[in-house]
Amino acid sequence: MSQAEIGLIGLGVMGSNLALNIAEKGNRIAVFNRTVEATRKFYAEAGALKEQIVPCETIEEFVAAIRPPRPIIIMIKAGDPVDQQMEILKPYLAKGDIMIDAGNANFRDTMRRFEALKDSGLTFIGMGVSGGEEGARHGPSIMVGGTEDSYRRVEKVLTSIAAKYENDPCVAWLGENGAGHFVKTIHNGIEYADMQMIAEIYGILRDGLKMSAAEIGDVFGAWNKGRLNSYLIEITEKVLKAADPLTGKPMVDLILDKAGQKGTGKWSVIEAQNMGIPATGIEAAVAARSISSMKEEREAAEKILGLPPVGELKVADRDAFLKDLENALLAAKIGAYAQGFAVMSAASKEFGWSLPMPTIAKIWRAGCIIRSQFLDEITTAFTKAPDAANLIVTPAFAAMVKETDAALRRVVSTAVLGGLPVPALASALGYFDSYRRGRGTANVIQAQRDFFGAHGFDRVDGADSHHGPWGSGLNA
Amino acid sequence: MSQAEIGLIGLGVMGSNLALNIAEKGNRIAVFNRTVEATRKFYAEAGALKEQIVPCETIEEFVAAIRPPRPIIIMIKAGDPVDQQMEILKPYLAKGDIMIDAGNANFRDTMRRFEALKDSGLTFIGMGVSGGEEGARHGPSIMVGGTEDSYRRVEKVLTSIAAKYENDPCVAWLGENGAGHFVKTIHNGIEYADMQMIAEIYGILRDGLKMSAAEIGDVFGAWNKGRLNSYLIEITEKVLKAADPLTGKPMVDLILDKAGQKGTGKWSVIEAQNMGIPATGIEAAVAARSISSMKEEREAAEKILGLPPVGELKVADRDAFLKDLENALLAAKIGAYAQGFAVMSAASKEFGWSLPMPTIAKIWRAGCIIRSQFLDEITTAFTKAPDAANLIVTPAFAAMVKETDAALRRVVSTAVLGGLPVPALASALGYFDSYRRGRGTANVIQAQRDFFGAHGFDRVDGADSHHGPWGSGLNA
Repeated sequence: MSQAEIGLIGLGVMGSNLALNIAEKGNRIAVFNRTVEATRKFYAEAGALKEQIVPCETIEEFVAAIRPPRPIIIMIKAGDPVDQQMEILKPYLAKGDIMIDAGNANFRDTMRRFEALKDSGLTFIGMGVSGGEEGARHGPSIMVGGTEDSYRRVEKVLTSIAAKYENDPCVAWLGENGAGHFVKTIHNGIEYADMQMIAEIYGILRDGLKMSAAEIGDVFGAWNKGRLNSYLIEITEKVLKAADPLTGKPMVDLILDKAGQKGTGKWSVIEAQNMGIPATGIEAAVAARSISSMKEEREAAEKILGLPPVGELKVADRDAFLKDLENALLAAKIGAYAQGFAVMSAASKEFGWSLPMPTIAKIWRAGCIIRSQFLDEITTAFTKAPDAANLIVTPAFAAMVKETDAALRRVVSTAVLGGLPVPALASALGYFDSYRRGRGTANVIQAQRDFFGAHGFDRVDGADSHHGPWGSGLNA
Repeated sequence: MSQAEIGLIGLGVMGSNLALNIAEKGNRIAVFNRTVEATRKFYAEAGALKEQIVPCETIEEFVAAIRPPRPIIIMIKAGDPVDQQMEILKPYLAKGDIMIDAGNANFRDTMRRFEALKDSGLTFIGMGVSGGEEGARHGPSIMVGGTEDSYRRVEKVLTSIAAKYENDPCVAWLGENGAGHFVKTIHNGIEYADMQMIAEIYGILRDGLKMSAAEIGDVFGAWNKGRLNSYLIEITEKVLKAADPLTGKPMVDLILDKAGQKGTGKWSVIEAQNMGIPATGIEAAVAARSISSMKEEREAAEKILGLPPVGELKVADRDAFLKDLENALLAAKIGAYAQGFAVMSAASKEFGWSLPMPTIAKIWRAGCIIRSQFLDEITTAFTKAPDAANLIVTPAFAAMVKETDAALRRVVSTAVLGGLPVPALASALGYFDSYRRGRGTANVIQAQRDFFGAHGFDRVDGADSHHGPWGSGLNA
C-alpha cells in the first residue's frame, strides 16, 4: 500500500469533513484522533472513501503512514491544545515535516509557533479554512501562511479540495508565518459586518414595515437574483422562510436574539486599532453582538426608557423604499469591504507579507461564508489597480458608491428618525463622508489639543508658527 | 533642614509644573533630572518656591533627601524609559519606598511593574494625572492605583495639589496595581469622544450652515452657559475666536485638519473589545482621527468621488436647529460617557478592582480635560444608584435621554442627508436604540450562524430544539 500524501489529526466535525474531502479528491490520507473510538467510527462510516483513508491508532503508526516530508493537518480546538498537540508530535517528526494548523487561530499565535520551529528543521503552516462544515466537506476557501516551499509540498492536495470559482481553485499562499490566519481573521471580521448589515435591514423590514418573516424572506430572495447575490443573502432567505418543526411558526421568530462570538471579529478590530486603520463597520458589528448578548439589560432598559419612537414607518412609495434598502445594503457592504482590505493592506506592510489583494478577493469568491458575485467585482477592481489606496477609489467601486450612497443616506435617515438601530449601515456612511472630504474638521481638534496640552499643529499655509495665540495652555 | 516629603524625577514640562505645584502647597520636595542643567535651571527659576525645593544632582543625594518610606514620582516618557529609571533607582531604595509612575502608561505595563516589585519590599503606584500643563501646575485630577497603604503615605501631598470642586479634592485611590492608569485611559478615551462630537457639530455649523469661525465660537460660548458647560466647550469658543497673529485670519481656519493621537484612545478601544463591552463613541473618535491623518488619501478621494452632497443645509427654523444641535451634543455625550463607565465597570470585575463609579465621576469634576457640570450630575446619579447597570438607566439620565434623543435623531438625519460626517453622534444613537430594545435582530444572525456553522441557538420559548430545520448546514 502506498504512503499517504497527507495526515490529519482531529476528527471533530470540521476535521472529519476535511478528511473526507481530501480522500474523495483521490488523495491518500492518514488520520488520527486522541480517542481511538472516534477514528474507528470515522473509518467505519467512510464508505467507498475507505480506500483512500489510513486510520491510525498510535502516533508512531500515523507518522509512519505519511510520505516524507510529511504535511500534517491539525484540526483541533484553537489555543493551548494546538501547542500541546505539536509537542506530542515533534519527537516523531523528521527534517522538512510540516505541521499545519487549520483551526481558527489568532495569527499572533501562528507567528509565535512559526518562529519557534524556525531552527528545528520542522516547519509550520497557519491555514485559514472558511466555509463551515459544508465547505470543509465539498470545497472550502483556503488561506495559507508559511514558507513558500512548505506550501509547494501541499499545493496539489489543497488545490484538489478547495472550492472552485469558474474552475479557479480558492486557495493561495499569501505569505510567511501568520499571513493565512490574519487574512482568515479579516475574512471573519467582514463576515460579522455583512451579517450585521443584513440584520439591520431585516430590522427595518420587521419593525419598520411590519413585514412577516416570510415576506422579508421574499425580499432577500429577490435581492439574491441581483447585485447582492451572495451566500449570506441566499441563506437569509432560507432561514426567514423556514418553519419551526415544533410549532409551525416562522423559525426566526422563535430564536433568541442573543448572538455569540468566537473572537475573530474582536481580533480584527484590535489589529485594525493597533495599526490605526478605521474598521468601523466591523466594530459596529462586534458591538452589536455584544449588546445583543446583554438581553436582560436590554429588557430592563426598555422598561425604563421605552422603545425608541418606532411605529410603522411612513414610506410613501414602498417599492422605491425597498429599492433604496437594496442599494443601501450594497453601499454599506462596499464600505465594510473597503475597510477590511485597507486593514489587510496595512498589515501587509506591518508584518512584511506582501499580501496580494486581487488574489485574496479571488479565493473568497467561492467556498467561504462571504462568497459572492461582489467579490468577483473586487477581484477585477484590484487586478486592474493593485496599488489603489482604497477599494472605493477604484473606478468601478467609485462609480458604485456614487450610484448607491444617496439610497444609503435616505435609509439611514429614515431608520434613525424611526428609532431603528443601524450602527453598521451608518458607519459606512460616516466612512465615505469622512474619507472623500479633503478638508475635514480635525483642525478644531488640533486647536483644542494645542490649547490644553501644547501639542502643536501644522498650518495649511506652511508658515512657521505651530502654536495658537492662546499661550500654550498655561494661561487657560 | 527637614527632609523632603516626596521626590520627583523628570523635570520636563509636566514634571516641572507638578513639582512647583507640590512646593507651592507647602510640601518640601526633592527633584532630580537626568541632565543636571535642567535641575539647575528649574531651581534657578523657582523664585519664592525655592525654599520648599531640594535640587539634587546625584541619585544618592536625591534619595537621601526624602523622608522614608520615600515616595518618588517618576514623570518621564512612558514606556521603556520608565523601566530603565526604575532599575537605576532600585539599588538606592529601602523597604517601604514607593516608586510612582505619573506618566501616561498603559495600565498593563503598570500591572507588570506592580507585580514585579511585589516581593521586593518596594512598592509601585501607577498614577493618572489629567489636566495638561495648567492642571499639573495649579490642580490636576489624580487617579491612583497601588496598595492602599502606599496611597496613605502620599495622600496628604496629593490632596494638597489636586484640583478642588467645591472644596472636594479631585484625587482618589481607585484600587490596586493598574486601576489608576486604567481609569486615566478611559478618561482619555471619553475625551477623544467628547472632542470628536464637538468637531462634528462644528462641521455642521461650518459646512452646513456656512458660519464663520467667530460665529461658531458664539454658539459654543452660549452653550457654555447652559447644560453643556464644560472646559472643552469653553476652550472651543476660545480657539474659534482666536486670530492668527501672522495673518489676522481666524486661527482654526489655518490649522491643518490632521489630528494626532498618543495611544490612550486606542487602548480604551482595545480593552473594551477584550471585554466585549461596546465603546462605539470612542471607536468612532479614534477612527475619525485616523482618517484625519490620511490627508493626502482624502484629497485624492475627493477628486475621484467628489464631495458628498453638501450645500447650505435647508433649515427652516435656524434657532430651533441650533437648539437641536445643543441637545444632540448633550445626548451624544451621555452615550459616550455611559459607554466609558460601562467599560470601567466591566474592568473592575475583570481585574478585581472594585472601582468606585461615583468617586471616579467626582474626581473628574475639576482639574481634568473633561471637567464639567455634567460630571457632577453623573456623580449624583451614581451616588444614588451605585449598582446601576448603565448610566442611561439611572433616573436622571434616563430622563435626559428621553428629553434629548429626538434632537439627536433630527441632527443625525439632517447631517447624513447633507453629506456631513457624524460618526460619533450617530454611534450614540445606535447605542441607545440597540440598548433600549428588548427584542433585537440578532435572532437572524443566530439563524445564519446555525445554518452555516451549526452553532446552535436558544429559543425564546425554551423548547428543547436548538438547531434550525436546515440540516446543520450540510445540506446548505
